[in-house]
Amino acid sequence: MAETIHDMLRELEPEIIGWRRTLHAHAESGWTEFWTTAFLAEALGRAGFHLKMGAEILDGPSRMGVPEDAVLEAAARRAVDQGADPKLVERMRGGFTGLVADLRPEPAPTIALRFDIDALPMEESGAAEHRPAREDFASRNAGQCHACGHDGHGAIGLAVALILRRLAERIPGNVRLIFQPAEEGVRGALPMVRAGVVDGIRAFIACHLGFRALHTGELILGLRDFLATSKFDATYTGVPSHAGAFPEQGRNALLAAATAALNLHAIPRHSAGATRITVGRLEAGEGRNIIPARAVMRIETRGATTELNDSMYARAQRVLEHAAGMYDVGFENRVMGGCSGARCDPAMVEVLRRAAADMPFFRPELIRDGVHFGASDDVSEFMSAVQAQGGAATYAMIGTELAAGHHNGRFDFNEAVLAPAAELLVRAVLALSAARA
Amino acid sequence: MAETIHDMLRELEPEIIGWRRTLHAHAESGWTEFWTTAFLAEALGRAGFHLKMGAEILDGPSRMGVPEDAVLEAAARRAVDQGADPKLVERMRGGFTGLVADLRPEPAPTIALRFDIDALPMEESGAAEHRPAREDFASRNAGQCHACGHDGHGAIGLAVALILRRLAERIPGNVRLIFQPAEEGVRGALPMVRAGVVDGIRAFIACHLGFRALHTGELILGLRDFLATSKFDATYTGVPSHAGAFPEQGRNALLAAATAALNLHAIPRHSAGATRITVGRLEAGEGRNIIPARAVMRIETRGATTELNDSMYARAQRVLEHAAGMYDVGFENRVMGGCSGARCDPAMVEVLRRAAADMPFFRPELIRDGVHFGASDDVSEFMSAVQAQGGAATYAMIGTELAAGHHNGRFDFNEAVLAPAAELLVRAVLALSAARA
Amino acid sequence: MAETIHDMLRELEPEIIGWRRTLHAHAESGWTEFWTTAFLAEALGRAGFHLKMGAEILDGPSRMGVPEDAVLEAAARRAVDQGADPKLVERMRGGFTGLVADLRPEPAPTIALRFDIDALPMEESGAAEHRPAREDFASRNAGQCHACGHDGHGAIGLAVALILRRLAERIPGNVRLIFQPAEEGVRGALPMVRAGVVDGIRAFIACHLGFRALHTGELILGLRDFLATSKFDATYTGVPSHAGAFPEQGRNALLAAATAALNLHAIPRHSAGATRITVGRLEAGEGRNIIPARAVMRIETRGATTELNDSMYARAQRVLEHAAGMYDVGFENRVMGGCSGARCDPAMVEVLRRAAADMPFFRPELIRDGVHFGASDDVSEFMSAVQAQGGAATYAMIGTELAAGHHNGRFDFNEAVLAPAAELLVRAVLALSAARA
Amino acid sequence: MAETIHDMLRELEPEIIGWRRTLHAHAESGWTEFWTTAFLAEALGRAGFHLKMGAEILDGPSRMGVPEDAVLEAAARRAVDQGADPKLVERMRGGFTGLVADLRPEPAPTIALRFDIDALPMEESGAAEHRPAREDFASRNAGQCHACGHDGHGAIGLAVALILRRLAERIPGNVRLIFQPAEEGVRGALPMVRAGVVDGIRAFIACHLGFRALHTGELILGLRDFLATSKFDATYTGVPSHAGAFPEQGRNALLAAATAALNLHAIPRHSAGATRITVGRLEAGEGRNIIPARAVMRIETRGATTELNDSMYARAQRVLEHAAGMYDVGFENRVMGGCSGARCDPAMVEVLRRAAADMPFFRPELIRDGVHFGASDDVSEFMSAVQAQGGAATYAMIGTELAAGHHNGRFDFNEAVLAPAAELLVRAVLALSAARA
Repeated sequence: MAETIHDMLRELEPEIIGWRRTLHAHAESGWTEFWTTAFLAEALGRAGFHLKMGAEILDGPSRMGVPEDAVLEAAARRAVDQGADPKLVERMRGGFTGLVADLRPEPAPTIALRFDIDALPMEESGAAEHRPAREDFASRNAGQCHACGHDGHGAIGLAVALILRRLAERIPGNVRLIFQPAEEGVRGALPMVRAGVVDGIRAFIACHLGFRALHTGELILGLRDFLATSKFDATYTGVPSHAGAFPEQGRNALLAAATAALNLHAIPRHSAGATRITVGRLEAGEGRNIIPARAVMRIETRGATTELNDSMYARAQRVLEHAAGMYDVGFENRVMGGCSGARCDPAMVEVLRRAAADMPFFRPELIRDGVHFGASDDVSEFMSAVQAQGGAATYAMIGTELAAGHHNGRFDFNEAVLAPAAELLVRAVLALSAARA
Repeated sequence: MAETIHDMLRELEPEIIGWRRTLHAHAESGWTEFWTTAFLAEALGRAGFHLKMGAEILDGPSRMGVPEDAVLEAAARRAVDQGADPKLVERMRGGFTGLVADLRPEPAPTIALRFDIDALPMEESGAAEHRPAREDFASRNAGQCHACGHDGHGAIGLAVALILRRLAERIPGNVRLIFQPAEEGVRGALPMVRAGVVDGIRAFIACHLGFRALHTGELILGLRDFLATSKFDATYTGVPSHAGAFPEQGRNALLAAATAALNLHAIPRHSAGATRITVGRLEAGEGRNIIPARAVMRIETRGATTELNDSMYARAQRVLEHAAGMYDVGFENRVMGGCSGARCDPAMVEVLRRAAADMPFFRPELIRDGVHFGASDDVSEFMSAVQAQGGAATYAMIGTELAAGHHNGRFDFNEAVLAPAAELLVRAVLALSAARA
Repeated sequence: MAETIHDMLRELEPEIIGWRRTLHAHAESGWTEFWTTAFLAEALGRAGFHLKMGAEILDGPSRMGVPEDAVLEAAARRAVDQGADPKLVERMRGGFTGLVADLRPEPAPTIALRFDIDALPMEESGAAEHRPAREDFASRNAGQCHACGHDGHGAIGLAVALILRRLAERIPGNVRLIFQPAEEGVRGALPMVRAGVVDGIRAFIACHLGFRALHTGELILGLRDFLATSKFDATYTGVPSHAGAFPEQGRNALLAAATAALNLHAIPRHSAGATRITVGRLEAGEGRNIIPARAVMRIETRGATTELNDSMYARAQRVLEHAAGMYDVGFENRVMGGCSGARCDPAMVEVLRRAAADMPFFRPELIRDGVHFGASDDVSEFMSAVQAQGGAATYAMIGTELAAGHHNGRFDFNEAVLAPAAELLVRAVLALSAARA
Repeated sequence: MAETIHDMLRELEPEIIGWRRTLHAHAESGWTEFWTTAFLAEALGRAGFHLKMGAEILDGPSRMGVPEDAVLEAAARRAVDQGADPKLVERMRGGFTGLVADLRPEPAPTIALRFDIDALPMEESGAAEHRPAREDFASRNAGQCHACGHDGHGAIGLAVALILRRLAERIPGNVRLIFQPAEEGVRGALPMVRAGVVDGIRAFIACHLGFRALHTGELILGLRDFLATSKFDATYTGVPSHAGAFPEQGRNALLAAATAALNLHAIPRHSAGATRITVGRLEAGEGRNIIPARAVMRIETRGATTELNDSMYARAQRVLEHAAGMYDVGFENRVMGGCSGARCDPAMVEVLRRAAADMPFFRPELIRDGVHFGASDDVSEFMSAVQAQGGAATYAMIGTELAAGHHNGRFDFNEAVLAPAAELLVRAVLALSAARA
């Protein structure tokens, strides 16, 4: 049997790589994954999965950082232009992207796998040494780029689905595949949890390519040191003025923001553990000869614990408020996302360990556990919710060499990881089903 | 006769105000004045003026700060959508906006009037107390706003043209009406001068509404203390990285720009005279959780003399260069515009003084000369070129109450100034013609 | 007679230069001019002048920026060690320095000359090319330096006194010589005015070496554009902490001050005229591994008008307050000095013009009036007070080449200016006396 | 026997507390511990220890951050004025403070204890709630304060010495007591190591009061996570100028330093572990109205590993260099200290554990090992040197409640810890001696 699963995936491998490249080329950032969702929905629908979409799987008001209507509509139109089924796109109207696919409509789902599918709002490299550019699958969408491997996650999810379908008679219960939107900015998980997507889940596995696992054959079964995080936008509103003739009449929002940015990064390190702060985006001013009357900053804090993150957030608010006061400009803060920390259950770590043990692809000396994460993934919201209802969860990392770091426009990974990653998850689902049967 | 001119303009006044409002609603910033130019060209063509457009009146390579092709094309499309003649728009392809209209094709032009017609790249207020919003002539074009009165200048120019046409038999020579694009950013005059637009001009008058003249009936016949200015864009290029997981791997262009902005504004005042520095626009970073790898600043310096401006520019370059060095990011500087100072000729000041003396609208006690300007207008390029070929020039300001300062989204003026402004210019042209005859 | 005055001063010249060098070597900054005052008091006492000192000539509570007792006492002790008469020093106890010397005890004084005598709190250059170092009259007092020419002012004042004494029978009224302490920081004049030092003065002259007059033979009879100014100290009080072990427990006063300093200098220029802001001194923190809990800044603002200075002061307070808020540190502001603007009376300008006309030393083409000052001198307090009681005043500048700019540790001037400067003042006094007789 | 040691220390306790208070009152910062060293030398000499001082125990050129001669001389004079033996003080001339006391001159020393004895350069609180102020043993030396417990360390060392002397017949080998100067700034250990102070040491113990152990009865037997650190001074040299009259002629060292300070603190956190940066002291400028021409910053970086600290140091140099370039001022960097990380040997941890087990004072549930340090102590230089020659070492922390954190002017500890701390060390020495015998 083991050989059979391995052979199935070996056979499917060229297609999996193809799906990854297709998803890569259609990179869509959080809440605009129209084409991506439609692509997955069509394939999973054809395979006989029971699909849920839209407000069924997302609690609308919990969605933070949803783009403006014009942006959503342009993205939806683009998806249709690029071939997405208009009826599916219509079901996602207003940015209700993402997909939940059940192997069986009932009985109660027991096993869940989560795949995040969004891209980053950044430019992809066009350099010749960047394989997606060279081999012509770079993002067609300006300012959108799969620089975090979620294209691979989507392709793995689709592969897992197709194999599980074929092995369905060996799986007595339900398997739920969760294709989560808007992981970047940690915004998509909470609305799914609040819409009931985790109801009934007893076992939960998610995985990420690369990150702390940078060699083919490497496998991290569980992580520690998730960073809690807050995402927020600060807006300053001043008074414009002619920069040459009446500079003193302006209230300069750009300088307030520059002062804030510097002093935010100068918030002291904390002896109790890791913290982070980043102003990832700053946009201020209009014309060159107008005292800038408006500035917007997109900011995030992180902390090794919720307390550390809270302390960073409180200090950041103090800095932002007084930078505004210094320049006599108005200040508005808007929370755009955030998530807590998380922990991996030893039981689920063991399930993965045994599944990997049967696969020569994973090199025993590179299989580890309890590895430092030091970053955030809102998978933590799913994990906490599952654990709260008595289930078990883990978050794994599957090793692959990278062409450049995560969130870099030249990010790329070794596609040889895709089929084994799918195989690992299939084996884990079968093992969990067997235990349960 | 004096009564006749006055009566003509009185009669025309409702139309002039209408033109101003139409231009206001179609605000277009520098090098995108497609609708505006087409509107003027149609009216002046109908009136029998000899028109020149495109590369005839603009030296292409001298045009600084031309928007990217996509922006130009979108603006051109928008102009056609809003009713502009596609053939006229096609003649401006690539951002060759603006218009030169001669009363006679020959003999050599002797008298020139200049009107700048561009809007500012800023949002107009939608507040109820803002008349353009209340009376429904606010800008239809997002991010474009006539907040400096150039809509009025265009309307005055059109009024002057129609009246001069009717008085043509009293004008033996030529009168040239120059509708200049891209005055904001002081970019439009030099390409016009280099394309020969000032050839043969012996007398030159330009005027501006408001600014140093803030009462109806006030008139400044000539200004002193023009500020020389440099306009430039600084671009920083760093390295992106995942802000939570690997903050140390990034090279932060946003922080380099924030440091530069603060230190640029901290360049010391100069004992030899007025200086200015403004970072009018700063855009940095991509996503919230990516160390920002790119920042662009739009900057200007000014100085009461060319030496003072040069010294500000040199200091600014030093700050920009070392802010980049501090964060180990690349730095590129691109000059986008600039102009020298200027002086008004007493002879032309006298012409205006006599013209105003016959108009009860201008209150004698509010007619002044040699007033401090303390700002920049690239009318200085026209003035210097005219003076270099032996001609005389002046730059006047016509008083009007303002609802808010120049370059403020609530800027508006008292439209009662429009007809008298046109009358003043018509009278000046007639007086110059008479002297010459 | 003219020859006689000239001859007298010619003969006295070596002594005047010697006095200047002696004063230079005993540089004492504001409110510590113990040796300097004692030196002058002894010489003027011997010459028969009627002397006033201490609380008679200074309103105690009006003296701002008085050093701490320990500093005053150390300076007083040093003066005695350097040979000052202990009884005189005792009369200045508590920093009551400065001297008023009347030619006659009565009748009412009519003519006053003011000489400022304090040094700057800065290090003098020891370089070989610096004449005071090379010729061994550099400051013996560490951190105290005559880098503004007040040593010359004191020497001129003494020379004038001795000559006037000899010409006393030609002077029917009184002449009052005011030796003002603490001009740097504009602190000494107001307490003198409030103590009644200007009572009865009808004509007032003060002069400064160099500044806007940089050639031997140059003379500025009167100045315009005095800068109003405010002097103040800002103190931040935070919380110290171990910088390695508990950085987050500190509240960093040093970073608050650094932020304040940058943003203070970034206060925008003003279109209505010249402004200035300087953080001249910043001291923050204790040990290297302690989060700095205290910072002190010595700051000044200036403005071409009192309104401009007030606006700078208000903006500075806003910046200081919010930089404190940003770092959650306490903020205390203490006003340390300040003065208004001033104007020169044409009548007094004429007196000086005629006096200079008789001296070949002053080159007619280099004698000017109404020259731009663009700085502050609290002589303005004397001038305003004299003018308020119906008198006339002027502030002159006497040209001399400088080795380096004012307030630079290599400042030095051409001593050939000293005797002619004294001669000019003697002639002015005689002319005023003659007019009055 | 155990009771005997306990009883001896119980009896000695009032004296130990007295010594601590005496040392507290005579706080002396690094390289000026003249009084402190003399006090200990006299007591240990009387007790029959063999003393070494001066250049015998300190390699002169390795001493970093030695104060200027004038400061050293003033401190030496003050020590003599406060009763120190002039002959002893003379042996420390030039800042060669600290003491090494051997129980026996031979055979080879085997066991060493280290006590650091310097105070911090900061002001002690005078508040009534601060016990040293209230009970009249606050520092008599302005700007010097025992805010890190080294006064307690010295008192413990003296107590240990006196008890060991009485138990000498039970100790076959030598015991060396090292009283280290200049631990603050991590400057004193390396010169001692280089002078051969660790020669022959096989077992090494040091301890610190408080820090990570904040309860009476708590004991940390060994620490992990020492921070490597670099200490350095940055000096900026600009050009002074009159701040009102010629602001543009200055080159502002204060603003360069302010910019550097902000941007140093904004150096990003590192994903590989803890880092620190602090500008602990900044002094810039002279008078209020002089553009500041000089600035000095005392800076430190730290890192969880030497690599992390090196990376912080390299980034800091880049920031410092370019802040200088931005303001066109000269930059000089001077390394003032630094130390590597360290590790504790399990064998020595066990020795302490057994010694503590016999003392009811230490509560078993509060005895820990392998505790996170997260700070620096140049005890690491001794430990590395001992380990390099085959010896074993540990660094312990002895719990005590604190009135305020380390390096805070209100720091104070519970003196009940002193006698038990000495007892623990005596027991450890006896156990090591017994093992060896």
